[in-house]
Order: sequence, then structure tokens, then C-alpha cells
Amino acid sequence: MRLLGICGSLRTGSFNAMALAQAGRSLPVGSELEVLDWRTIPPFDADLLAAGFPGEVATLRDRVRRADGIVIATPEYNFSIPGMLKNLLDWISRGEDQPLAGKPVAILSAATGPLGGARVQYDLRRVLLFVDAMVMNKPEVFIGQVQTKFTTDGTCVDETTARFVQSQMLAFSSWIDAVKRMRPQELLQN
Amino acid sequence: MRLLGICGSLRTGSFNAMALAQAGRSLPVGSELEVLDWRTIPPFDADLLAAGFPGEVATLRDRVRRADGIVIATPEYNFSIPGMLKNLLDWISRGEDQPLAGKPVAILSAATGPLGGARVQYDLRRVLLFVDAMVMNKPEVFIGQVQTKFTTDGTCVDETTARFVQSQMLAFSSWIDAVKRMRPQELLQN
Amino acid sequence: MRLLGICGSLRTGSFNAMALAQAGRSLPVGSELEVLDWRTIPPFDADLLAAGFPGEVATLRDRVRRADGIVIATPEYNFSIPGMLKNLLDWISRGEDQPLAGKPVAILSAATGPLGGARVQYDLRRVLLFVDAMVMNKPEVFIGQVQTKFTTDGTCVDETTARFVQSQMLAFSSWIDAVKRMRPQELLQN
Amino acid sequence: MRLLGICGSLRTGSFNAMALAQAGRSLPVGSELEVLDWRTIPPFDADLLAAGFPGEVATLRDRVRRADGIVIATPEYNFSIPGMLKNLLDWISRGEDQPLAGKPVAILSAATGPLGGARVQYDLRRVLLFVDAMVMNKPEVFIGQVQTKFTTDGTCVDETTARFVQSQMLAFSSWIDAVKRMRPQELLQN
Repeated sequence: MRLLGICGSLRTGSFNAMALAQAGRSLPVGSELEVLDWRTIPPFDADLLAAGFPGEVATLRDRVRRADGIVIATPEYNFSIPGMLKNLLDWISRGEDQPLAGKPVAILSAATGPLGGARVQYDLRRVLLFVDAMVMNKPEVFIGQVQTKFTTDGTCVDETTARFVQSQMLAFSSWIDAVKRMRPQELLQN
Repeated sequence: MRLLGICGSLRTGSFNAMALAQAGRSLPVGSELEVLDWRTIPPFDADLLAAGFPGEVATLRDRVRRADGIVIATPEYNFSIPGMLKNLLDWISRGEDQPLAGKPVAILSAATGPLGGARVQYDLRRVLLFVDAMVMNKPEVFIGQVQTKFTTDGTCVDETTARFVQSQMLAFSSWIDAVKRMRPQELLQN
Repeated sequence: MRLLGICGSLRTGSFNAMALAQAGRSLPVGSELEVLDWRTIPPFDADLLAAGFPGEVATLRDRVRRADGIVIATPEYNFSIPGMLKNLLDWISRGEDQPLAGKPVAILSAATGPLGGARVQYDLRRVLLFVDAMVMNKPEVFIGQVQTKFTTDGTCVDETTARFVQSQMLAFSSWIDAVKRMRPQELLQN
Repeated sequence: MRLLGICGSLRTGSFNAMALAQAGRSLPVGSELEVLDWRTIPPFDADLLAAGFPGEVATLRDRVRRADGIVIATPEYNFSIPGMLKNLLDWISRGEDQPLAGKPVAILSAATGPLGGARVQYDLRRVLLFVDAMVMNKPEVFIGQVQTKFTTDGTCVDETTARFVQSQMLAFSSWIDAVKRMRPQELLQN
């Protein structure tokens, strides 16, 4: 399985990038998580779109389309989705096709505060509902006080966190299989 | 298929009861929607639960468990879920088992205002996420200005509404089949 | 100042009842919190309302109207508002008048899990927006792992929790004064 | 009064820009709405912030700080806040000071669909709660089917829409006065 990982933060040394890498290391053998570098995606502007998808966006949409599943790890900014992550999703969602429709998605969030992103995940789920993605219900993963759980080189030093992330990735692997059995493309044709 | 219908309003002549009946009439041949009468469900109270599920609640939970899918039609009270509908869900959710886990659910809402329940559906989806239900993404059905769309005897006089409800029920029928193919019980064992 | 306290749980020994009592003990001198016993409020039903407010509801609405402010302490049930608490708010919200309009409200939540009710508070805020209450923004109080912070007799044994609750009650006291200066009744006449 | 208007869309000929201009024309005599051009605000990136606020952001934050109130008119993208509008708010929210704290804000939304942005407004309110803004409760303004309500040159041809926007701006004018009477800076010092 080839999964695409999207980190909601652009910061070097982002804790969510660490959590995402941890998710990648927790996948069953034979699966692989490739992390997207989306720094060059431009601000969404319908005037720009009128001239067709910019090259970076077209590439991004192709990669989403080809992935077996998407893993999003995101911080919470001001009780909601980081603007630039939402901008990325705004671009992906446009056009005749819809790369996220029927696509399995898993969400995790990490934050330095105690709640670990409890608010951002539900906004993200609503956005992903709009694009008709197949977001896994559970287990939810919220990593609070993340600065105590990863060292600065990205090593996960908290066993509970490692176990939660691993159980989510195992469940996600089953979820991807299950979504395939659903034959979502048939569903989408209705 | 045997579906269970839950109306969010207790009012005689409820527009959501009409919408739910319309959903029942819109099902493919061979499917049937039975509407739950939940008026006697008591207020949830953990002290009461400590003595075991009250009889009406135990019956309700069995009916949910046996249904092939659940259709919820609900008004929006104060921008969220009607209290008593939430109370019903609070009862269903308790206990060792979880009758709604892996269960296909479709949501529609009707309101006399223009928005047709745009806010209540997302709260309901979050609640159903908690209990790990398999809520269908789309099509969403919001019936605004419902008083112009049904006569007092419950006849749907608006063709667009009838068509939307029918397309949702057809999609729900496919969704139930698709969820069966997922084998959600396997998923839940993970 | 006479504040009215509403606990979202009916359970004897409710942790939120303890948190609410703690809020009462944390008020500045001269203020008092009276906790509402709302166990006898019936299920909301528009048919019932058609005959006028039931006695308990009329009394409840009067008490809300006369209070200088409302403090709500609530658990989170299934990622949202406990059904019976919502039912209470559904009753309060009905009728020509609106007892909660312009009324200062503070929200706190306690839970045995780590998030302390992070989801329920925003649903509650949206409901209170509908009824045009003046809900204080900050500080927010989420009491996670509440079973480690109160003894079974309701003593708060966690200093951080006690401090948070106290700072919220001090802020709420200022908020009530500030709302008075706004003259919300004038605003509501616009 | 000097209000700052923020449009959630960057598109030339944006319906929300029209709605915002309509809000500007609906203000009481003596008040003025200046619409922000925020096209050059860069993607938020904590690495960039580490070097201090970029010039455009510093200017933006000053303008927010000096305004008597903020009017936000926004479309809904994928059931939530447009990414770039959220990015703008992410920038404003950072730093030692908080230009939006205690600041009166009014929200309206326009959409070509029937719901007129029913979902985006509550996400926006939650974000503005985080930054401790004083968001006016009511009247809420949702402009559905906006393409039938404004001509391409921005003239509002729907009397109901014009009346709703005007009543919101009158209420906002009173709200700004009321917030001044609250003396929010005193509150924020608590």
C-alpha cells in the first residue's frame, strides 16, 4: 500500500511532522507512507483556477488520486484547521473530478497543550465529508503535550503515544481494505 | 431490508415525521421502514442505568441492533440536536455492546426556516462518530420551508423534495450493501 | 450577585456537580451560586407546550430570568451535550420572551478522560448563541481526569483545578458587571 | 466609526465582496467601512514568524488594532472557512499582543447555494472565540442564491437582502457602542 502523508504545519521541526513520520514507521510491512511537500502550493483564487490548475496543484491532485490512503497529521490553529492546510484542501476539492471522493483518510493531531487538537479534527472531518472522502471513525489519536513525547530529532519517547499511533495505522490498513471491498466507485456512480 | 426510522420530534403532525414517512415510501421494493415510537424512553440517568437498562431501553437497543440501517429525520432545536433525541442516543450508546457500531445511518432534516437544519446534522454526525456508526456521506438532505412542501396529512407536494428524498434512499440502499461488503464486525474486532 | 448553577448530569455524585460546587465556593464575597434541581422537567414536546408551560418549566424560566448569571458545568455525552441538559435548554428557549437573552453565562466541563469535555463546550456555545445569551469567552475551563481531582465527598484536591475554577469565577464576576454596562436590554430592542 | 471589512474570497467579482460593499453602504451616517486588500499576505509559517512579522502582516495587524470594528463577509469552501481567510486570521492571532481581543466583529456570508454559508459562520465564531474577539450574536445574515440578489456590477436587487444587511449593520453599530461601555480592556487585564 502506498499512502500519502500530509502534515498541517510548514514549520521545520514540526511536531506533527514527527507524528506523521511515526505513523509511517508504524505501518504494517509492505505499506509505505510518502510525505507530501506542499510548500509551493499557491493561495487558492478562483481567478487563477479559471486558467486551469497550476502545475503544482495538478501534480498534487494526481498524487492524491493515486494514493491508497491519506494520513493527515495536523496542529490546531486558533481552534480550527491551519489556514494553509485548508488552502491545500480547497485546491484539491475543485474541478470536475474529485480526487478525495471515496478515498480512505486517517486523521491525527498533536499539540503542545493538553487537548492535543480536539477541536481541529471535527472541522477537518466536516471538510472531508464535503469531498466525500472515506474518513476512518476510530481510533482517534490526539497527542497532547507533544513536546514531552518526541525528542527534537523526532524520536518518539512515549510508549503510549507509539502504541496509539500504531493501533491507528493497523486499523487504517484494515480500513483501506474494507473500503476497497465497498467498491466506492460504484457507490459514487449512483 | 428492514430499516428503523427515528424522528427527532415528538410533536403530533411533526414535519420530520412526514419526511421520514416519505423516506419510507421512497425505498426500493423489498425494503421497509418501521418508525420507532420512543415517547416512553426515560431521561438518561447513570443512577437508573446502574440498575440495568429499563425495559423500554433494552427493547429499543435490540431493535437498533437488528435493523439493517437507521434513518434519522430531525428538526433543529436551538441550532443543535433536540434534547430528547439526544437522550435517546445517550441511552443507546451505553453498555458493553454498542448497537450502533458499524450500523449504516442516513440523516435528513426538515425545518420551517430556509436552512432546513444545516447545523443539527453535523452535531448528529459527531455523536454518531462516537458510537462508531457508518453514517452515509452523501447526498445530504435539508428540507427548508417544509410547511410548503407537505400538506397537513403528510402528502409531499414538492417534486424536488420527493426526488431528493428518493435519491437519498436509493443511495442509502447501496450504502447498506456496501457496508455489508466491508464486514464491519471484522473491523470492530481490530 | 445571585447566580444560578446548572449541572449537565443527573447522577448522584456527579463530578460536574462537584465542579459546580467548587465554582460556587470560588465566587467573590457577596456572590452566591444556587444550584438548580431540574430532575422533574418533562421531555420537551410541542404538543405539551401548546397547553402552556408546565409548572416546573415556568418556575425554571423565572429563575433563569431573575439570575444575574448562569454557570453551566457539564459532562460530554457522546461528543456533545447531554440530552437532558439540552432538553432543559429547549424548554427555556421557547415562548415569546427569552429568559436567556442578554444573560451572562459561564461554561465549564469535567470528564474522566483527558480532554475534559473539549467538544461539548462549542455545541453549548452555539445553542446559547441561538438564545442570544452573553457567554463569556475566556478563560475556558476543561477538567480532565476529574476523578483524580475531587474526592468522593466533593473536595477539590488539585490546586491547578481550584485555581482555574477560581480565575474563571473572578472573570465571570467582571463579565457580569461588564454585561450590565452594555445594557443588553437596549441592544435587544434594536 | 471606522470599520475594517474583510472579504473571505480573493476572486474578482466575488459575491461576498459585493455583500461587504452593501454592508458598507448600509452603515449609519458617520461610519465608514474600508475594505482590506489582503492578497499579498504570505502563507503562515512559524519559521517565517521567527524572523518577525513580515511587513504586510505588521501593517494588517495595525489596521485591525485601530479599527472600531471588523466586518467579515465570507463564502464557505468545503463546509468551512476558506483556507486563505483562515491563514489571514492565523497571522493576526500570533504575537504577544492580540489585535482582535475585545474587538467587535460582525459576520455575514453569501453563497450561490440555498444555505448561504450556514456552516462556515460557526467555525469562524470558534476561531474568533480563541482570539477573544467580541463577536455580535445576532442578527445572523446568510445570503443564499446570492447570484439572484446582486447584479454583476454589485447592485443589490433583492430588497429582503438589503434590509437584512442594513439591520445587521445598525445592530453592529449599537454593538460597537455597547462593547465600548463594557470597557473590554479592563476585562482583558483580569
